[in-house]
Amino acid sequence: MSYQAPLRDMRFVLHELFDVSAHCELLGNGLDRELIDGVLDEAARYTGEVVAPLNRNSDEEGCRLQDGAVTTPQGFRDAYRQFVDNGWASMNGPVEFGGQGFPQLVSASFHEMLMASSLSFRIYSGLTEGAVLALHKHGSEALKADYLSKMVSGEWTGTMCLTEPQAGTDLALLRTKAEPQADGSYKVSGNKIFISGGEQDLTDNIVHLVLARLPDAPAGVKGISLLLVPKFVANADGSLAAKNALSCGAIEHKMGIKGASTCVMNFDGATGWLIGEANQGLACMFTMMNDARFQVGLQGLAIAEAAFQGGLRYARERLQSRGLAGAVQPDKAADPIIVHPDVRRMLLTQKTLTEGSRMLAAYCARQLDLEHGHPDAAARKAAGKRAALLIPIVKAFFTDMGQEVASLGVQLYGGHGFIREWGMEQLMRDSRITQLYEGTNGIQALDLIRRKLLGDGGAELSALQAEFSALCDQQLDRPALRGLAQTVQARLGEWRELSSEVIAASQRDVQEIGAMSVDFLAYSSYVLLAGLWLQAAARAQDALDAGTGETAFYQAKLHSAEFFVRRVLPRASGHREALLGGAACLMAMPEDSFAL
Amino acid sequence: MSYQAPLRDMRFVLHELFDVSAHCELLGNGLDRELIDGVLDEAARYTGEVVAPLNRNSDEEGCRLQDGAVTTPQGFRDAYRQFVDNGWASMNGPVEFGGQGFPQLVSASFHEMLMASSLSFRIYSGLTEGAVLALHKHGSEALKADYLSKMVSGEWTGTMCLTEPQAGTDLALLRTKAEPQADGSYKVSGNKIFISGGEQDLTDNIVHLVLARLPDAPAGVKGISLLLVPKFVANADGSLAAKNALSCGAIEHKMGIKGASTCVMNFDGATGWLIGEANQGLACMFTMMNDARFQVGLQGLAIAEAAFQGGLRYARERLQSRGLAGAVQPDKAADPIIVHPDVRRMLLTQKTLTEGSRMLAAYCARQLDLEHGHPDAAARKAAGKRAALLIPIVKAFFTDMGQEVASLGVQLYGGHGFIREWGMEQLMRDSRITQLYEGTNGIQALDLIRRKLLGDGGAELSALQAEFSALCDQQLDRPALRGLAQTVQARLGEWRELSSEVIAASQRDVQEIGAMSVDFLAYSSYVLLAGLWLQAAARAQDALDAGTGETAFYQAKLHSAEFFVRRVLPRASGHREALLGGAACLMAMPEDSFAL
Repeated sequence: MSYQAPLRDMRFVLHELFDVSAHCELLGNGLDRELIDGVLDEAARYTGEVVAPLNRNSDEEGCRLQDGAVTTPQGFRDAYRQFVDNGWASMNGPVEFGGQGFPQLVSASFHEMLMASSLSFRIYSGLTEGAVLALHKHGSEALKADYLSKMVSGEWTGTMCLTEPQAGTDLALLRTKAEPQADGSYKVSGNKIFISGGEQDLTDNIVHLVLARLPDAPAGVKGISLLLVPKFVANADGSLAAKNALSCGAIEHKMGIKGASTCVMNFDGATGWLIGEANQGLACMFTMMNDARFQVGLQGLAIAEAAFQGGLRYARERLQSRGLAGAVQPDKAADPIIVHPDVRRMLLTQKTLTEGSRMLAAYCARQLDLEHGHPDAAARKAAGKRAALLIPIVKAFFTDMGQEVASLGVQLYGGHGFIREWGMEQLMRDSRITQLYEGTNGIQALDLIRRKLLGDGGAELSALQAEFSALCDQQLDRPALRGLAQTVQARLGEWRELSSEVIAASQRDVQEIGAMSVDFLAYSSYVLLAGLWLQAAARAQDALDAGTGETAFYQAKLHSAEFFVRRVLPRASGHREALLGGAACLMAMPEDSFAL
Repeated sequence: MSYQAPLRDMRFVLHELFDVSAHCELLGNGLDRELIDGVLDEAARYTGEVVAPLNRNSDEEGCRLQDGAVTTPQGFRDAYRQFVDNGWASMNGPVEFGGQGFPQLVSASFHEMLMASSLSFRIYSGLTEGAVLALHKHGSEALKADYLSKMVSGEWTGTMCLTEPQAGTDLALLRTKAEPQADGSYKVSGNKIFISGGEQDLTDNIVHLVLARLPDAPAGVKGISLLLVPKFVANADGSLAAKNALSCGAIEHKMGIKGASTCVMNFDGATGWLIGEANQGLACMFTMMNDARFQVGLQGLAIAEAAFQGGLRYARERLQSRGLAGAVQPDKAADPIIVHPDVRRMLLTQKTLTEGSRMLAAYCARQLDLEHGHPDAAARKAAGKRAALLIPIVKAFFTDMGQEVASLGVQLYGGHGFIREWGMEQLMRDSRITQLYEGTNGIQALDLIRRKLLGDGGAELSALQAEFSALCDQQLDRPALRGLAQTVQARLGEWRELSSEVIAASQRDVQEIGAMSVDFLAYSSYVLLAGLWLQAAARAQDALDAGTGETAFYQAKLHSAEFFVRRVLPRASGHREALLGGAACLMAMPEDSFAL
């Protein structure tokens, strides 16, 4: 399927909504508008021309495992070489290890393009970036010297080995062991499943980050340590030692992302080294959790954009029936289906969810950047709190949204949507994993209430609501935006009340947390997007008021904002009412009665 | 994946809610409770033990086309032979052609079981039953004598050849030609796509029902005729002539139902005969439209049941983490995930949508039976109107619901939901077609407003609403049900108001029809299900009041009704608000601006 990066919308978000140049100046990274736009243009070319053409075949061909070696789909090796050679791998990496130190606000656009072009292809490098973060923050100088530069450059990839058959959400149940050796290394033994990129043919080495238990470690999550276990140990001279005692035992047969190898990894006394302190493995993993979840959120956004492009293309080309009010293009055998209100409803739902999420992704990326790079310590801390609040929303809402938008893509194609050659059903299959990995969306929703809302009594959420409310106030005086601003302001007020009720109910009955969580996350997401759509409308109105050569672009933003608030935002009402339905009706049913 | 027919719930619906014995007496078909229960027990055995075990492999193996011949997955031939030999094929067939004349109210339970066991396997026989209906009603005596008995018995299958590459929803664009011959036959030429079971290895002959144009036929849908075009023409002595001039040119690569062959069929001057009058093909097809759409609705229901069973099994077995209020099964390494409110929310959503839809399916099946078999002509007509109103709801809502419930099944399994061996992702892929074929769900929603609601100014819908409202009134005096009845009654009132607004808006602006349609169908569905859940609760309370040995079963019905009304019905509010958002925000965007 063809893919064209939505460069105009990305520039709107980066420059007009979030002033990325000022952001870069604050961070002191030397990037300016011209450079950023140039990078995005080149990123659009690479992803659209090199990566996207591989995606359909990668689904058909999948990965193959033979004699312990995994073959990735045709073209992945070449595309990966370009990814490394042209510096795409090192975009976010730490400068002192050869990285380019791009802020997330910029790199998120590239990563969205990459994921939209081929989610499978992106898996390999995405996991590496997570491993780099953990190693950079917690690894010893010796380990970093031996491994980090080649991981930053992409010459070697990294994996995250967490899950075991009996331990998914609940890492307390981990059994993999790490036995200390006289030389300070460890022998790691155990079986890990669902290891993305656990084995592949893209690189000469793979650096596994493995959660395991040391002997006599405390039970549960306080006894988990993080170890670096390379496929080939790096010698001091940079050469590689013999193969470590680890192997890929099987690759999974999956619904989608078939171009990404998902491996069963067996560690049979493999040599590894501790990253960070013993028994502090979970804390080390948490270092990269926000970034990893943000990246998965981007995957939902990326799939949504790809599905919208596909749906729109078909809706404009497919001639079938006449408009409800009569022929719109009487010279043709039939009208293009985009003339139909219900087709437009589907397309505008795709468009406004996608573009709305892109704004929220940028908002969140900016906070992640400020958390790590703001010159002021208090500002870093504040940004960290804001990012932490938003991460579960970005992960869960974007990925649910991506699945919905992909499904709308299938629906727009009618029967052809079900046929593999058209590419729409692949987007549905590929995106379905995003609701599951890096913590299921149910876990994200629990995190939002339990850690983020109850963690500070709702203070950070109140601050976010107040910020959005103040931005809303600024638009109430503008005749063209007043109606929109009033609707959004009313929802923001409702959201504040609902948040208080959620806190009160959680304190009354701990089961209410899990009973309300998914609906509260969804409710909050729709209101947040409405607030951002109002901001987009405001910037569009600014441009129209100032006189612009792009009237149609800005008018489309106004139309989109209107559509979102009138036709998508109402979903919040359903979530609110369902949430208020309470926990009792969930917990009353005896377990045995479910089967009656 | 294992499947156990939900016999207790089916008996609850058939006997306790809809008194199937009295229904059969009215229809005069000689069936009684004992016989019906015996048939369902045997159906459960056949589907659970013979068909369900084939389903996983059928997805992996798919169908193969070689030299024009299609090989179906391993085991399908044997299972199909049992299907024919044991009389399952002829269950609904007309008695004078060897059928058993079962009412839909009974056979719907068997068909649900069959679809839940293997949707792919059911495709072949489902299409045959549709073809039987059309041929029986409109075919000449000679055609019926030659073909009908063997189609009723299942010895031969039937297909419906409608779609062409340029003509899907819009049959006016059909190009297939039928040239009259001196002997009264026709030579049929053209290319058809998406022909389910167009070629297969289950039977010796396949009878294609083909839409085509006669020479000089009027343009558009008024120039379409229906023809019977057999793979092998039946000689007068029952033997088969040489292969007709038709062939399977390709089979589609699909997202799911891979065990069902979906064929490109080429007709190259194939011999055929007219069914019904020339140019009356669409009317002939409409004969079977209600039944075909009802069957597709059942597919959504069936997949939902299968996904619920899978989800429940896993939620009770999977040990992971502890309950929010502390360990529930402290002797185990962790609690089963069913202790979590959010897991229960997913399971109860699955359960109440599935069981609620099963009640509505039975309600609709009864109307279809009465339409064809009530002794009184006026009652037949009334039932026909009621069925026609409900069919688009059953088709669209059940299939959207099936997809949602299947996706919840995947979600309940966490990462394992994405792995093919567990079977949950197959249910999602298989069910996705049901939202597309037999008229996309968008087309169903248009049909609901345009033909069914506006067709009689809302009279039939008002009658349905009044019927549900009266049933609701009867429960208002019962303390245990009062709260539930009040909530449902309030929604019924809101539904009546909304229906009036929909009619008014449609008359104001024809675009409003398409702008409101999908939300109105969804809204109506949730309120209908709430009405039925109240009835289920009433029958459960009756049983509890009377004293029953099945207290847990009836208590579960009360819990389920409460859950549905508190936690699922609120979705109606979102649909109502979205619908009231109007058409203007859909139609305002210029077509070119969608891409901006």
